[in-house]
Amino acid sequence: MTEAEFIAALRRLPLHAGACGLLDDTARLAGLTITSDTIVEGVHFLAEDPPSDVAWKLVATNLSDLAAKGALVAGVLLNYPLTDDSWDRAFLAGLDEVLRAFACPLLGGDTVSLPAGAPRVLTATAFGTDAAGPSRGGAQAGDALWVTGTIGDAGAGLEIACGRPGPPALLAAYRRPTPRLTEGRALAPHVHAMMDVSDGLLIDAGQLATASGLAVAIDLAALPLSADLIAFAGKDRTARLAAATAGDDYELLFAASAGWTPPVAATRVGKLAAGSGLALQDGPEALPLPLMLGFEHRSVRTQLTSAGGHDLSQ
Amino acid sequence: MTEAEFIAALRRLPLHAGACGLLDDTARLAGLTITSDTIVEGVHFLAEDPPSDVAWKLVATNLSDLAAKGALVAGVLLNYPLTDDSWDRAFLAGLDEVLRAFACPLLGGDTVSLPAGAPRVLTATAFGTDAAGPSRGGAQAGDALWVTGTIGDAGAGLEIACGRPGPPALLAAYRRPTPRLTEGRALAPHVHAMMDVSDGLLIDAGQLATASGLAVAIDLAALPLSADLIAFAGKDRTARLAAATAGDDYELLFAASAGWTPPVAATRVGKLAAGSGLALQDGPEALPLPLMLGFEHRSVRTQLTSAGGHDLSQ
Repeated sequence: MTEAEFIAALRRLPLHAGACGLLDDTARLAGLTITSDTIVEGVHFLAEDPPSDVAWKLVATNLSDLAAKGALVAGVLLNYPLTDDSWDRAFLAGLDEVLRAFACPLLGGDTVSLPAGAPRVLTATAFGTDAAGPSRGGAQAGDALWVTGTIGDAGAGLEIACGRPGPPALLAAYRRPTPRLTEGRALAPHVHAMMDVSDGLLIDAGQLATASGLAVAIDLAALPLSADLIAFAGKDRTARLAAATAGDDYELLFAASAGWTPPVAATRVGKLAAGSGLALQDGPEALPLPLMLGFEHRSVRTQLTSAGGHDLSQ
Repeated sequence: MTEAEFIAALRRLPLHAGACGLLDDTARLAGLTITSDTIVEGVHFLAEDPPSDVAWKLVATNLSDLAAKGALVAGVLLNYPLTDDSWDRAFLAGLDEVLRAFACPLLGGDTVSLPAGAPRVLTATAFGTDAAGPSRGGAQAGDALWVTGTIGDAGAGLEIACGRPGPPALLAAYRRPTPRLTEGRALAPHVHAMMDVSDGLLIDAGQLATASGLAVAIDLAALPLSADLIAFAGKDRTARLAAATAGDDYELLFAASAGWTPPVAATRVGKLAAGSGLALQDGPEALPLPLMLGFEHRSVRTQLTSAGGHDLSQ
């Protein structure tokens, strides 16, 4: 089954009201905002990746989903496969760092063993409180679409991880993303829709628009690029298109009234309008959509967008 | 690292107060009781097991941890690896059955893909409310130790799953355990300590006693055996010892004042006393402990018992 077929089948099971129809990145229960992500060696991370960075990214990407709800971090569960000593110890060191960095206490979890040679599969489940946050589906026609921080750094960092020389800050953006918890808290009470950018700016903007029943137009010329990224990849159209489709940014993408100015560092990258679909421009020039809107291993998700749904990505 | 070493390292990380020092089967947060279990193909289940039964057991064993707290079921998250169509579809059918059987709505989760040929790794995280339940560590010297239902059926069922002919009810006990939710609700307000029997009656009784700072004596002669199990395996000492060490029973083990009678079907199998350690008798005769107190693949957990701790089995 494809992911979309599987999720459609799940929707026919008894669902909790807090599951929000499996249409959002988080579930709600007892005042908590809950999100869970599983990562697989060879799919979501490389066997050669430093285990401490795998720990960081596993927790940080879950907290990014809480950030998009404007939630306060309450804690995290870890489901961990014991494999070899040095990997386990390095993972624990990174786990300690990320828990302390975001004041995220450990709540519990489970440890298992794996058959010899099996790829590692790790799960984290994060809990937030006091979410003021909107769903992805609340944008209104005429809203401006904004994104925090810069886009494309992590995509360049993946190239650096694969051997191309480049600035350490870009590699760090890929391996140690920062969940925008403070920004999410500041934005959540004011914006109409918000989500984190995990799959790529274009695909995620399309998901926000689809969930809101609107069309979205993105201006590549407005894309916020870091000085490091420009030094590494330039800033021509090809570079900006790469940045908009690379994913793993974990910045916040949000829609708000056109006249409103965000209280955090953010850049206006597009607008929402009645209708449906994703349109791309580069300044005054309309562009065709690229064939791949996001990471290749996530490309099945485009099916979810076109089906009007979302992945079950709690 | 061994599981015990890993959990000891986790205890040095920032822990949430609701983690209960990673000493219990569940965590507490915002009035919820939370438990999470991961199961691995080739470790916790066989590639040949019916996928619908894998779904049932994954959810039911999590709910068993809620039962031991006397909690009401609120819902469950699922982290699922998509593999092949027929397995996915059969899994969904079993998931539908178990969610409906225990009125457990789906809250969300995550789907991932696996590298070709990788063993399946599945996680469920269950949430309960209104837990009145005691920990494992509240037993008092002089308490009687009781167990619900019958013991050893699932262990015999595993033999049947592996090819030995036997009663279908025993196979069902192994593949489709029933979490004792109703019994847990009735018992929780009255008992001093409670846990579910997952690793084996002897090892789990030892864990309850260790957590309570007490010694425990188990009388094999008192073991509640089903008519099916007696027909399959007899009821001599060997059979009773096998039943007490087989695990996967998912019955409730609880300690209560000696003069108190449980309001549910249960059998008194032992008693708690000042001191430490596990003693075994068969009626009037004292027996040496068997070398293996529980399932072989869980035998590392005996280290946890002797270290005075518990597995991180939320």
